Amino acid sequence: MSCITQPAQAKAGIITDAMKHVAEVEMVSPETIRAAVAAGTVVIPANINHKGLVPVGIGRSLKTKINANIGNSALSSCPRQELEKLRHALKYGADTVMDLSTGGNINQIRRSIIEHSPAPIGTVPMYEVLARCETVDNLSESFILDVMREQAEQGVDYMTIHAGLLKAHIPAAKKRMLRIVSRGGSILAAWMNKNNRENPFYTAFDEILEICRRYDVTLSLGDGMRPGCLADASDEAQFAELDVLGELVRRCRAADVQAMVEGPGHIPFNEIEMNMKREQRVCDDAPFYILGPVVTDCAPGYDHITSAIGATMGAFHGAAMLCYVTPKEHIGLPNARDVRDGVIAYKIAAHAADVALGKPGARDRDDAISRARADFDWEKQFELALDPEKARELRAEALAERDMPADHDHKDERFCTMCGPNFCSVRISREL
Amino acid sequence: MSCITQPAQAKAGIITDAMKHVAEVEMVSPETIRAAVAAGTVVIPANINHKGLVPVGIGRSLKTKINANIGNSALSSCPRQELEKLRHALKYGADTVMDLSTGGNINQIRRSIIEHSPAPIGTVPMYEVLARCETVDNLSESFILDVMREQAEQGVDYMTIHAGLLKAHIPAAKKRMLRIVSRGGSILAAWMNKNNRENPFYTAFDEILEICRRYDVTLSLGDGMRPGCLADASDEAQFAELDVLGELVRRCRAADVQAMVEGPGHIPFNEIEMNMKREQRVCDDAPFYILGPVVTDCAPGYDHITSAIGATMGAFHGAAMLCYVTPKEHIGLPNARDVRDGVIAYKIAAHAADVALGKPGARDRDDAISRARADFDWEKQFELALDPEKARELRAEALAERDMPADHDHKDERFCTMCGPNFCSVRISREL
Repeated sequence: MSCITQPAQAKAGIITDAMKHVAEVEMVSPETIRAAVAAGTVVIPANINHKGLVPVGIGRSLKTKINANIGNSALSSCPRQELEKLRHALKYGADTVMDLSTGGNINQIRRSIIEHSPAPIGTVPMYEVLARCETVDNLSESFILDVMREQAEQGVDYMTIHAGLLKAHIPAAKKRMLRIVSRGGSILAAWMNKNNRENPFYTAFDEILEICRRYDVTLSLGDGMRPGCLADASDEAQFAELDVLGELVRRCRAADVQAMVEGPGHIPFNEIEMNMKREQRVCDDAPFYILGPVVTDCAPGYDHITSAIGATMGAFHGAAMLCYVTPKEHIGLPNARDVRDGVIAYKIAAHAADVALGKPGARDRDDAISRARADFDWEKQFELALDPEKARELRAEALAERDMPADHDHKDERFCTMCGPNFCSVRISREL
Repeated sequence: MSCITQPAQAKAGIITDAMKHVAEVEMVSPETIRAAVAAGTVVIPANINHKGLVPVGIGRSLKTKINANIGNSALSSCPRQELEKLRHALKYGADTVMDLSTGGNINQIRRSIIEHSPAPIGTVPMYEVLARCETVDNLSESFILDVMREQAEQGVDYMTIHAGLLKAHIPAAKKRMLRIVSRGGSILAAWMNKNNRENPFYTAFDEILEICRRYDVTLSLGDGMRPGCLADASDEAQFAELDVLGELVRRCRAADVQAMVEGPGHIPFNEIEMNMKREQRVCDDAPFYILGPVVTDCAPGYDHITSAIGATMGAFHGAAMLCYVTPKEHIGLPNARDVRDGVIAYKIAAHAADVALGKPGARDRDDAISRARADFDWEKQFELALDPEKARELRAEALAERDMPADHDHKDERFCTMCGPNFCSVRISREL
C-alpha cells in the first residue's frame, strides 16, 4: 500500500488540502508548510478517518497551539460531562483536545468526542490498554497494538506513547523526590521492573509505525520521565529519556510517520530556555509539546497561572504546542469551569509568545482592542477580548458595586469605575 | 537638624534596627544591607511616624516584593471596604500596600489604613491634591507641598510622584495610541499644556526632598509615561522620562533620600529584559518597581495572569518590587476577591523569579510541599500552599463531584481524584 501520510506526500512534492488550509490560517505560503512537513518540523495531526476535521499545523515556525485535556477517571465518569468539557475547551479556543479517560466506557466516550470535534483529538492508548487488560500483569505488545489499531481506525489524530522510558532509566528515577509522575510512565516502569523486560512500546515500535502510517496517526512521544517537582527538573532521568525520544523521532521520519515530542513538567523559570533548546538539538527540531511547565510547586489551586508563566517562556523559546494545566492540577479532576480557566490562561500564554516572536498578524488583535480602549468603545473591547463573557461579567459586577444596573448603557461612558470621571487618564490625555 | 533617614545613617556606618530586621528576613548579613542602603540599591520605606511598622527591604539583591493597590474612587467610597481590602492584601501576602483613594474622605481612610498596617504604606499625593483643590486650575507647588507634608507627618512610608514627565515630553506622548494612561501623568500633562509651565513636582523637587528627609519618606519616582498598550511600549516618551528619573535618583541620593523608580506597564514579553537592564543602567540600579507588565492587551478579565507572566520575567531580570494587577484592570475598581486573586498571582510571580535566581531559602517551600505530595500528606500540602483556603476549596469541590463529603477524611488517601486509585503515578512509582 502506498503511504498516504502528510510527510509522505510532502516529500513527493504534493501540497495537500490540509497543508493549504494550514498555510492560509498561518499566513505563510503552502510551499513553506509542505517543506516543513517534509522535514518533520511541522506536523498536521489528521487521521484519515476523522470526518469533519479542520486541520491544524503544529511547529515552532507557526502560531503557538494549545491543547486541553478532558476525560474521566474511574471515580467520575459521564459521557455528557465530557462533551460539555469538549464544548468548553473548543469555545474558549483549544486547538487540540486530548481524551484522557481512564475509566467507564472509554470507547464510547472517545467515539462521541471524535464525532463532535472539528479539532484534532489525541489519546494515551495505555489508559485504555490498562482499563481493558484488568491487571497490569496481562499487559503485552499484542494488547497494545490491538488497542492502537482500534483507536486509529476510530479516527484518533495523535497518540501519546511513552516509548522512550527504558528499563535502564529506572534507577535514575528512583533517586528522585517524586520519581515518575507520568501515569503511563509509572505503570510501564512498574511492569518492566516486575517482569524484567524492556518497554513494550519501544520493542513494538516498528509495528506501531505501521499502524500510524496506515491512518496517518501522529505520534506524540511522551515524556514518562517529566519532572514532577522543581527538585527533579533537568536531571539524568529526564535527559536520558529525551535522547531516546530523539532516536524515535528519526525512526518516525524515516517511516513517513509524523512525530511530536512531549516535554516537562515542573521546571524552574531559569531552566526553561535551556530545556527548549536541548529538545530542538536532540530531537532535530521536532515540534515540542510541553505541559506547562509549572515554575513553582507551592501554588495548588493556581497551577493554571504557575504554568502559564512557564508556558509563555517555553513558547518564546520554541515550544510549538502548550498542554494546558487547570487550577485543579495536583488536587483533582477538572470540571467545566476549570477547563475554561485553563484554556484562557493558555490562550494568553500562546498569544503573548506569538506577539513577542512577531508571528504574522499576532499583534493585530492587541492593537485593535487598544484602539477600542482609546475610543471608549466598550462593546468592541468585549468582542475582541479572549473571553468576552468574563469581561462583561466583571464589568457588570463593577457597575453593580456602584449601584448601576448590569444593563446600564455604557456605550458612551467616557470613563470606567476604576478611576471615575475626573481621573480618567484616557479621556484627559485625549484632550491634550 | 541632622538627617535621620536610613541612607544617611548607613553612610555614617550605622546599622539601624530596620536594617537588622531586613537582614534577618533576607538571610544576609546586616553589613550587606547597610552597604546597599548607603548605595541606594536597597530602600527600606519606613516613615518615622508609622508606628508598628515592620520594615521591608526592596532591591534586586533581596527577595522580590509585591505591592497591592487599594483605595476608593469618587464613585465608590467606603472606609470599611478599604480596611477589608487591606486585610485581604496582607493576609494573602502583600509586602507593601498603596492607598490610591481619589474620592470621599481620603485623609480619614489613609489614617485608618496606616494605623492598621504593619506593612509599608504608599500613596500618590497628587490624588489628594486634586480632590482638595477642586479644579486642576488651582494646582500649585505650595498646594502639593502642603499635602505631601501632611501625608508625611501622618506616617506615609513612600510616595509616588510623577516628577519626571516634563513639558518637553508631551509631543512624544501625543503620537501614541493611548497617549498617557497614568492618572497623575495625564493630569499633570493637561495642566502643563494649559498653563505653559513646567511640571510642579519637578520644579519643587528640592522642597520635596526636604520633606522626605525629615520623615524618611521614600520617593517612588512614578512613570507618568508608562505605555498603556503594546503599541506604545519602549518608545521615545517612555525613555525620555526614564532619563529624567535617573537624574532625580541622583538628586535623591545626594540628599540622603531613598528612591525607587517605577516602570511599565504594557510591554511585549521580548522587550522586558531590555527594559529592566535599561533602568538599571540609566537609574544607577535604583530599585525598580514595576506594574505588571501586561504582555498582551486582549485579555480583560484576566490581567492578573497576563501581568503575572510579565512580572515573573521582569523580576527574573532585576525588578525589585512588583505592583499587582487584578482581574478588574481595564474594567473597574477591584473588590476584595479581585485583591486576593491579584495578590496570589503576584506571590507566584515573585516566588518563581526568586527560585529561578537562587535567592536564599527560596526553594525550601517548593521542596517541602513536593515532599508532602510524595507522602500523600494532604494537610501539609494545604498548609504549605500559597493560598491554603483555595487548595482546600478545590479539593472539597473535587470530592463533592465524586459524591464524597467535603469533610471526608482524606489524610490517608493514597491517590487523588485526578487519576483515581489505579492510575496514581505517585503511589505506583513509590513502590518501584
